[in-house]
Parts: sequence; C-alpha cells; structure tokens
Amino acid sequence: MTNKVCVLGAGSTTYGKLNESIIELALNASREAIISAGITPKDIGAGYISNVFGAADKQVHIAPVIMSNLGIPYVPGLTIESACGSGSVMLREAFANVYAGFYDCVLAVGVEKITHTGTAQSTTLFSYCSDFFYEGGNGASFPGLFASIARAYLSTYKATEEDLAYVAVKNHENGMLNPKAHVKRRITVDEVLRSPVVASPLKLYDCCPFSDGASALILCNEKFAKSSGRPYVEIIGSGRGASPAAIQGREDITTIPSTVNAAKQAYKMAGVTPKDIDFAEVHDCFTIAEVIDTEDLGFFEKGKAASLTREGETKLTGRIPINPSGGLKAKGHPIGATGIGQVVEVFEQFTGKAGQRTVKDAEIALTHNFGATGASAAVHIFKKVN
Amino acid sequence: MTNKVCVLGAGSTTYGKLNESIIELALNASREAIISAGITPKDIGAGYISNVFGAADKQVHIAPVIMSNLGIPYVPGLTIESACGSGSVMLREAFANVYAGFYDCVLAVGVEKITHTGTAQSTTLFSYCSDFFYEGGNGASFPGLFASIARAYLSTYKATEEDLAYVAVKNHENGMLNPKAHVKRRITVDEVLRSPVVASPLKLYDCCPFSDGASALILCNEKFAKSSGRPYVEIIGSGRGASPAAIQGREDITTIPSTVNAAKQAYKMAGVTPKDIDFAEVHDCFTIAEVIDTEDLGFFEKGKAASLTREGETKLTGRIPINPSGGLKAKGHPIGATGIGQVVEVFEQFTGKAGQRTVKDAEIALTHNFGATGASAAVHIFKKVN
Repeated sequence: MTNKVCVLGAGSTTYGKLNESIIELALNASREAIISAGITPKDIGAGYISNVFGAADKQVHIAPVIMSNLGIPYVPGLTIESACGSGSVMLREAFANVYAGFYDCVLAVGVEKITHTGTAQSTTLFSYCSDFFYEGGNGASFPGLFASIARAYLSTYKATEEDLAYVAVKNHENGMLNPKAHVKRRITVDEVLRSPVVASPLKLYDCCPFSDGASALILCNEKFAKSSGRPYVEIIGSGRGASPAAIQGREDITTIPSTVNAAKQAYKMAGVTPKDIDFAEVHDCFTIAEVIDTEDLGFFEKGKAASLTREGETKLTGRIPINPSGGLKAKGHPIGATGIGQVVEVFEQFTGKAGQRTVKDAEIALTHNFGATGASAAVHIFKKVN
Repeated sequence: MTNKVCVLGAGSTTYGKLNESIIELALNASREAIISAGITPKDIGAGYISNVFGAADKQVHIAPVIMSNLGIPYVPGLTIESACGSGSVMLREAFANVYAGFYDCVLAVGVEKITHTGTAQSTTLFSYCSDFFYEGGNGASFPGLFASIARAYLSTYKATEEDLAYVAVKNHENGMLNPKAHVKRRITVDEVLRSPVVASPLKLYDCCPFSDGASALILCNEKFAKSSGRPYVEIIGSGRGASPAAIQGREDITTIPSTVNAAKQAYKMAGVTPKDIDFAEVHDCFTIAEVIDTEDLGFFEKGKAASLTREGETKLTGRIPINPSGGLKAKGHPIGATGIGQVVEVFEQFTGKAGQRTVKDAEIALTHNFGATGASAAVHIFKKVN
C-alpha cells in the first residue's frame, strides 16, 4: 500500500543577504509553512532538512536544533546534502517516506546561510561541490565550468550571448513581481551584455547571486490532506538522476543527463508529457542552465530553447512560463533551500497566492533542481487539487 | 507491498589516521562491499552516503564523485548528515527505500576524513554538531558535555570512575582482535584512571579517538539476496529517535530519549525484546555513553550497567557482549562511517568473518548509533539467515 503525497502548506523567508542565523531562517520558513497548512508542530512525524554549508554558520546537525526550537524535540530530523540540488533531492526522500507510509505528515525545510563569508570564500566553498580533484582544485569553479558549457552550446547551436541575455531579462521581470525575491531590479538585454565579464561568455547578469534564505513545506498523505479541508497540491511524479561528476566525463556538455533521466522517471510516474506542463521552475544558476534545462525537460527541441526564449515563449504570458518566481537568477539561490523554494512557488501559484505573477489556468507544474553542473538532479511534477 | 531488506555485502577501510582522500576512502570501502556481495557496480540502483565534514577535505557533494569513480556515473547518490549518528540515520533511509520498493539493491557508504585538521580544529568542528547557540558557542564541546552527563550518572547511581574504566579496558581488549581497529593497545583499569584528565570525570582513555575511515554495505531486497546464493543478513527492525538538541532541555541527562524511542520502534518492528539480542554494537564515544546506552536499550536495569560491566557481563564471553568490534573507543570513530561500520561488524560476525572476536552462537544482533549527545539516533536489529 502506497500513499499519494500532497503539499499542504508552504513558507519561505525572503531570499537575499540576511542577518538571521541559519537556525532562525529555517524556523521562520518552517513556522510559516506550519501556519499555512493549518497544522500544529505536533502533527509532524519527521523533519527532512536540506543544507550544504551549515559549518559556515557554526551549526552542523541542524535538524535536531530546528525540531527542538519548533517545540517538537522528540520528532526525528535529518539533513540531506546534494550541493545546489539538496532541496529537490531531500524532497524526493521526504516524498518516499510519506509514499511508503513511514509518516503521515512531515516537515521539509531547506536552508542556507553563506553570504556572511563573502563572495571569495563562498566561491571557494561552492567549488568543493564540483569534482574537486579534476575541477575546483584546478581553478575551475562554477562560473568557469558553466562558461565552458555555454561556449559549447553557443558554438554547437549557433545561439548568441544576446539570446542568453533574454533569460536574465525575463527572470528579473518575474522577480519584480515576487515580494520575497533577492534581486528586484528590471534589466535590459543591453545591460546584461555590458555587465562585467565573469567567465566569458558569461557576464555578471548571466549569473545568479549568492543568497541566504530558507523555504519549507508540509507534506502529507492524501487522507491527512483531505481531512484538513484546505487547498493542497498533489505530487504526481518524482524522479532522480545523476551525471558524471566532472564535466570532462560527459559525452556532450550541452545536455545534462541527470535532468533527462529524472524527468523521464517523473513524467512516467505522473502519466504526463512535457506538453501537459503549464509552467515550470527550473535550475537557472546561470542563463545557459535554463536554456539547457528547458530542452532536457522536453519543452523545446534541442538547440531551439535560446531563440524561443528570445521570442518570449517562456515569459509569464508565453506558451510555457519558466521560472515565474524569478528563478535562481532573480528570486535568489540559497543553495540548500532552492529546490524547496521552487515548490513553494508551485504551492502559491496553485492556491491563489502568487498575485501578479500567477500563471493563468495552470493545473500541472514541474520543478527541476540540480547539484553542481548537474551531477545530481531531481524533478517533481505537481497537480492542482482544489 | 513492502520488501524485506537484507545486507548482502560489507567492506571497510582500517580506521585511524589515514593518508587517503575522503573519496579514496569511500571507494576502498565500497569496492570491498561490492566484491563481498558478489555483485558488480551496475547492480546498484542508488547510493546512500553518510558524511559530516567533507568540506574539511575540500570535497562536498561527494555522492556523485563516488558513484562516478565506481564506474556508475548515472546512478543517483545523496549524502545524509546527522552528526556522529549519520551512518545509522543514512542506513534508515537506505532501508526505507529498499523496503518501499524504490530500489532492489543500493550501496550504503559512510566516510569521514578529519584527522589532518588536527585535534584542536577537529574539536571545534565537532562542537558545531552540538546546539551551538547554547553549548559549543559557550565552550561546551563534547568532552565537557559528556563529562556533565557522567557526573550526573555517577552521583545518581553511586557508580565510580573505576566502573567506567572497565568499559575502556573491555573495548580495547576487543579491538586487539580487530585487524581494522584504530587503537590496538591493551590497557588496564589503572592506566585509564591515571590517564590525563580531559574533562573531569572523563580522562583520556574514557574518550574515543578522532578517526578517518569508511565503511560500506550492499543492501538489497530478499529476492535479490536469495538469488545471489550467498550468505546474507536480514534487517528485521529499524527505528529512529530524537532528543532535545541541547542537554539543558532534557529532564534527566542520565538517559538518552532518542535511544529509548528508536529502540522501542526497532524492537516492535522486529518482534523481539532486549533479551533476544545476542550482541550489540553501541555508541561508546565516551565510556559513560556505553553505560547509558546499554540501559536505554534495555540490556540492563537503570543504574546497573556500570557495575555489571565491571563484573564482565558485556565482555565477548559475557551474557550480552557489547562492542565486539572494539567500539568507537578502540575500533575508532570516523563520524560519518561509524553507524555503517557497526553493521559491517554484524555482517562479519554472522558470515564467519569475525575471527577470534566471534560471538558464539549469535543469531540476532543490534546496532545503535547517535549524533552529538544523542539529539538524533537510530537503532537497527539484524537476523542471521544462512
């Protein structure tokens, strides 16, 4: 006997450069999710936490500290790490436990506190998430790795740096409508193209920011959700994938195998195809990532995403809105929280809380979040219920 | 439909101050487990990794790096952290996934690489696993916290420092028989009592060492195990528990609620009682911990474990052998690996590979591993099959 798994509540801190501690951030998001679900902490059977660099804020083993501070010290929690994909990989485990009947209701909270270490130290710490022996240890930090990927894509598919700029412009546009976004600034294609080069062909506005923040969900089985009498969202598909850790091990760096495989599993489980997805939150750590994601997820034919993004197909009012929240690019990227924050966006969209960024008539949505250059990834598919 | 979960193979590096990188350690243990199970890497459906301080060896997101180096880069992996209890908490998740039918066969590998940072930095990093706001941040690192626990126990139950010394003497004795133990040195009660005070009443020989090391298991469903034609061990019980993160939040610090609750669940699932357990590997990060563990697990009445240990009941030839491997105290404590290493011991005991430290006629065993001062814990129960 397996259970349908539902999202009954969601909460999030603002993403950005924040003063709260890692624990305070996690608690603020968790409390908002608990209130949003109309439950009390004692309804929670277990806590699933995602985080990467707790040690940077001098708190590892954050799960029991979070549970204790929520007033449920005897409820077990654990932390899952999968680099920038930690949130979605954690969601998959929380999903599996409710699906298998181990718990009726769980808290899933992702958190990261990193900006206080500064940009240089953050870049160094993040580079430990690459295959450090081959990549980070030789100076290939993520901007450089994604620059290689962008270079390969642009030359293979005759796309342009200007095409990539449209991803940033669109996500900043969406972020303007998200009160919790890190970067609230409308930008133009010209500004993106003239921003400082970080790792050619990627410029400052092709890169997402380093962010602090936390996002939380209440997941439960269908019986629990129905008995609440509240609106909820059903998770109808879940998939996980992996790629060779170092990009040198991949046959083609213009596609990410973990995304392709995770999506295949999630679509199969959900019984839907890419055409059925009304909007998606995808992993746009760099503009090139969103382009590749939307092809790997099956929304666009290989090599077509850049030009179709430029033509507006991924805008809030386009054929397939991508990152209505603003994405990692504008909403921000607190790495342990990102994958959960994407689901917060789906929940808000499907429960009438997305305000001006609401995707019209949406009923099925997808979230996609990966770690490093896609060495790990998970994809989830959601259905609006009521 | 749920599945019985079995341990089909096990492997471990020596524990100690090691030169290999975190990845090399994990690979060495994993390869030994794979060979021990008679499978090939491509039989593995997912990797479950436990680790705490990967960043100390400049490699976070270790799961995909491990899977890639095993030649299975498209098989997803993830890392679970729960301080010193990471291994058992990870085992619980790997167990849940096979139990629920998500995978037929998975790799579960725990690893830690910490000694190169030195004793002072290791102590600082470990203190981040306490509730840092209340404990570590005020100078209460683990030796101090366990000293408080020991002081409370000794005064409540009229036990003596000499009683505690018997735990160390017995575990060092067992460690002498374990070729992979970190500390291979026979000690006397007198030596323990005269060793330098670390945090009174705990002295050097009351404390386990900082260790590097990795341990790995191949877990699979019963069908997979049976078709292998090899000896295997069945996991018949699994439980998780939690305690208030800071010890100030506990009503009584001479007992660890997470252990009590995890054990209750595991015994219930397995349909056995403490009397049915033939030997146990328990979390003896300090001598006082083993005393409290054996009471919380139901082997001894409250307040009696210290004197009964002194009388020899927990020796290899005693009524209930505790830590035949040498335990954290002598085998060593690479924190991310410890909970998995305990199961390696059970596997070796039940498949005729434990040599001189074999517990005679044992058929049911228990492993117990906690994080920090027991804020998190998991307990598993195993049955010898063939």
